[in-house]
Amino acid sequence: MTEPLRPGGKIGILGGGQLGRMLSVAASRLGLQTHIFEPGTNPPAAQVTAELTTAPYSDTAAIRAFAKSVDVVTYEFENIPPDALDEIERICPVHPGLTALAVSQDRVKEKDFLNGLGLTTAPFAQIDGLLDLQNALSKIGTPAILKTRCFGYDGKGQVRITDADQAAAAFDAINAAPAVLEGFIDFSHEVSVIGARSIDGAVVCFDPGENVHRDGILHTTTVPANLTSAQHTDAIILTGRILNALNYVGVLGVELFVTKTGLIVNEIAPRVHNSGHWTQNGCVIDQFEQHIRAIAGWPLGDGARHSNVEMINLIGDEALNVDALATDASTGIHLYGKAEARMGRKMGHINKITGSA
Amino acid sequence: MTEPLRPGGKIGILGGGQLGRMLSVAASRLGLQTHIFEPGTNPPAAQVTAELTTAPYSDTAAIRAFAKSVDVVTYEFENIPPDALDEIERICPVHPGLTALAVSQDRVKEKDFLNGLGLTTAPFAQIDGLLDLQNALSKIGTPAILKTRCFGYDGKGQVRITDADQAAAAFDAINAAPAVLEGFIDFSHEVSVIGARSIDGAVVCFDPGENVHRDGILHTTTVPANLTSAQHTDAIILTGRILNALNYVGVLGVELFVTKTGLIVNEIAPRVHNSGHWTQNGCVIDQFEQHIRAIAGWPLGDGARHSNVEMINLIGDEALNVDALATDASTGIHLYGKAEARMGRKMGHINKITGSA
Repeated sequence: MTEPLRPGGKIGILGGGQLGRMLSVAASRLGLQTHIFEPGTNPPAAQVTAELTTAPYSDTAAIRAFAKSVDVVTYEFENIPPDALDEIERICPVHPGLTALAVSQDRVKEKDFLNGLGLTTAPFAQIDGLLDLQNALSKIGTPAILKTRCFGYDGKGQVRITDADQAAAAFDAINAAPAVLEGFIDFSHEVSVIGARSIDGAVVCFDPGENVHRDGILHTTTVPANLTSAQHTDAIILTGRILNALNYVGVLGVELFVTKTGLIVNEIAPRVHNSGHWTQNGCVIDQFEQHIRAIAGWPLGDGARHSNVEMINLIGDEALNVDALATDASTGIHLYGKAEARMGRKMGHINKITGSA
Repeated sequence: MTEPLRPGGKIGILGGGQLGRMLSVAASRLGLQTHIFEPGTNPPAAQVTAELTTAPYSDTAAIRAFAKSVDVVTYEFENIPPDALDEIERICPVHPGLTALAVSQDRVKEKDFLNGLGLTTAPFAQIDGLLDLQNALSKIGTPAILKTRCFGYDGKGQVRITDADQAAAAFDAINAAPAVLEGFIDFSHEVSVIGARSIDGAVVCFDPGENVHRDGILHTTTVPANLTSAQHTDAIILTGRILNALNYVGVLGVELFVTKTGLIVNEIAPRVHNSGHWTQNGCVIDQFEQHIRAIAGWPLGDGARHSNVEMINLIGDEALNVDALATDASTGIHLYGKAEARMGRKMGHINKITGSA
């Protein structure tokens, strides 16, 4: 794609969850249509898209037909099988590109990449067997966290190790999968930056948000975050460095730990990010539209924020409390259209406006 | 419907144009699904809805099946055949109700209703034949405007008469349809109020917007409008009076002429209104979500405005100029996904943020 997508252009989205749903709505604002590819039935994004393909990612014929039906493909999560993306790339552009995806799919590659840019991560060691883990524990010490290299999200595939004796049990708990051991970071709080890069290389970041997790799942993001001016600047600059190094196109989420000695990069996500949902009610152009603009070859929004916002995730049953939430007129409600409010499931979020920016 | 619609609830929308499209997106934010009923093929709303019925309003079986598939029905335009609505009302609630629709479908009924509330309209006369028109012209004088009683929009079905000699030609021009002759109003500018009323009778209005038309089609709406404090209050109060008198549920647009002797009601529209599009980028809860909240039995937003906005319609070719528009990051772009940019066709609009409220 060399020309910007014209109104009526079609965007393919791999994944039909809430992120795909909100991307689809953002595309509609710009006069663009979407085609959702999702293995599961009745996904949230199906309610707001022109076209839906229900097939596994391994269905090459379905993947090819999907790619042929659209002008550009993006994805709502980073655990897409690489074979499917290779197929698609032969037919149409994929944004963000496969390099970004490969880096963020693998915690070892990710940390090597970040360290290579001169950015600080937690001390870590690659774990391919129990012996690796035992050696790493003696070097990194405890407490430490054992994480599967791939396919983790929302705290899944992670075990906390407080004593070297727990090595075998911890390795069992992650099914002896390829893993990484991360050393303990003494951080005061976590922030994240939602950055974007356009096809022609322009970089724009939204203001950092401050994240609070509960049971391993993001609970709130508050904007503005508690950061010194220097930390704020650092966070934006390092996000720009990551975006440029990956020759990235689209929106990227960067999670950062704030420590006494500076910012430490926790992880990056090559997609719109839960901690950027506040932009829907805080900015003229939100992270979803920003992503669509980037992958469609449009100019980016400037990330300007008109309001202070507290984003609160609605997990499981919390989304049933809509009547009470709806009585607060300074709160934007965003529900995902999921049929079942299972425990730990993200059902929606609210953006509470707390003042003018 | 006595209980508020729960997430997953279904809203039927008659009409699949841009208003239906933006209503559907607003419903999705609240976790509600939509079913669009539209006679035309490939309507804008089809790109963002879970279900679509393509059938004429006279297809009673299709209308019944549609009504049975949803919890509540609303509409995006006031020229729905009453028979279709009668069918639907036997099966599920219709909001806004048929009284509001009947009043706004007919310019004579509308003016009688408004005058009955003590509100000022243009002087007018009912025209059922050329003789009526000649008599009315001698009474009301020229300039005057001859308008068909029903089915007019965007300046269609209207003829300006500057001399009584033009009576026959003017009556011909509207195909001798039942009509109304309206006397000339010496107004300085036009404003409109987007009001809403909930099922339990709460009334909320957005700030009035100031409208400028071009070739009979709304060109810009600017908020805040140029109004004295007293005029502002009058505009809100009279809108509330109209909403209450109609026992209205949903969003209503009220167009007002500002004159030296006070506000004159031009017309009312029982639906979301083009002059309320600014709310998408000026308020946490916009007119589309406000309408969905009202008809779904939810509490209303408070109409609070965080930004000053200039809404500019993109008519015909103007929507092709997206590249230039997209470079202004303080501008929200809203395109309707229409395939063809015909002359005079509303293709989209932009909301330019001009400052904090």
